[in-house]
Amino acid sequence: MKIYGDSISGNCLKVKWTADFLGLTYDWIEVDVLRAESRTPAFLAMNPAGQVPTVVLDDGRPLAQSNAIILHLADGSTLVPADAYERARMLEWLFWEQYSHEPYVAVARFQVKYQGKPVPELEPRLVERGKAALQRLEDGLAATPFLVGDRVTLADVALVAYTRMAGDGGFDLADYPWVTAWIARVEQALAIG
Amino acid sequence: MKIYGDSISGNCLKVKWTADFLGLTYDWIEVDVLRAESRTPAFLAMNPAGQVPTVVLDDGRPLAQSNAIILHLADGSTLVPADAYERARMLEWLFWEQYSHEPYVAVARFQVKYQGKPVPELEPRLVERGKAALQRLEDGLAATPFLVGDRVTLADVALVAYTRMAGDGGFDLADYPWVTAWIARVEQALAIG
Repeated sequence: MKIYGDSISGNCLKVKWTADFLGLTYDWIEVDVLRAESRTPAFLAMNPAGQVPTVVLDDGRPLAQSNAIILHLADGSTLVPADAYERARMLEWLFWEQYSHEPYVAVARFQVKYQGKPVPELEPRLVERGKAALQRLEDGLAATPFLVGDRVTLADVALVAYTRMAGDGGFDLADYPWVTAWIARVEQALAIG
Repeated sequence: MKIYGDSISGNCLKVKWTADFLGLTYDWIEVDVLRAESRTPAFLAMNPAGQVPTVVLDDGRPLAQSNAIILHLADGSTLVPADAYERARMLEWLFWEQYSHEPYVAVARFQVKYQGKPVPELEPRLVERGKAALQRLEDGLAATPFLVGDRVTLADVALVAYTRMAGDGGFDLADYPWVTAWIARVEQALAIG
């Protein structure tokens, strides 16, 4: 398998962590998004959306969208709950992540860290929704050690990716103690540093 | 099962169409989002994200996020491909829909139809990204009758929901003939009018 990814992207790291956790072998091909390397004709032929991560499976077929990729790789593993309802809750977190978390927490980080925007100049709506997303995680994690019950699942993989880097976008993780403890727990479970 | 939904919301209609296609019985509880009925304490106790659709399964447990709900309901049915790679491609479309289609095509519609904003006053980025999403569908549908191969799947259910209403947001579906033909095909396959 080939993983086309940018190491600065939490979405790409999700795929790396999942593959590493599962002991899969792969080649990592670094794609520099800031230099538009995901917009070349060769890349667009593989993924018309021009986004990383994109993987090319061993049989040569491509697959995109970080959460779709990790669901495919982890199918049948302990990262996906066997119970149908727990699996559905995991999916609920995965879709929520892409709609209500990533567009705020990750985008704030990108603007501050890679586009040089000072935190006070971030769009207020971006900050407000980012904080709402972190608070929603905080509320959820007051009840269970991982997002879906007692063990690490893809919900944790997907949500920890940008949450652990939220400080880069001006969010203060000290305001979210349950989230902070959970980040350490997930990092340990996934053996990431 | 109880489905809490707003009939003006494509995300909610996805759940209705899936349940109807599968012959599931349910009570539909209308929730008027414009009147903030998804933000009452009673609703937030069921879904802390305050979003419709939310379903309450027969055993009383809640589930949110339209695409997570339809994946749960349709598990094991013909709406989910049996082949692992085709299933992954279906998931790819589902995540792409929430990240790269709904935030533009559905939001433009909402602003024009429900907030009274004239089409020429829509934010240019919203229009540009909405058109890019429709073009991506157009390119995909030039190759296959449904988004994943030869038969209707949840990818079609999810993507047709706001695509068929794109005109409400000022997009001209006549510019996308493959999409237009696909909408009719999906409407027929799902028996929706």
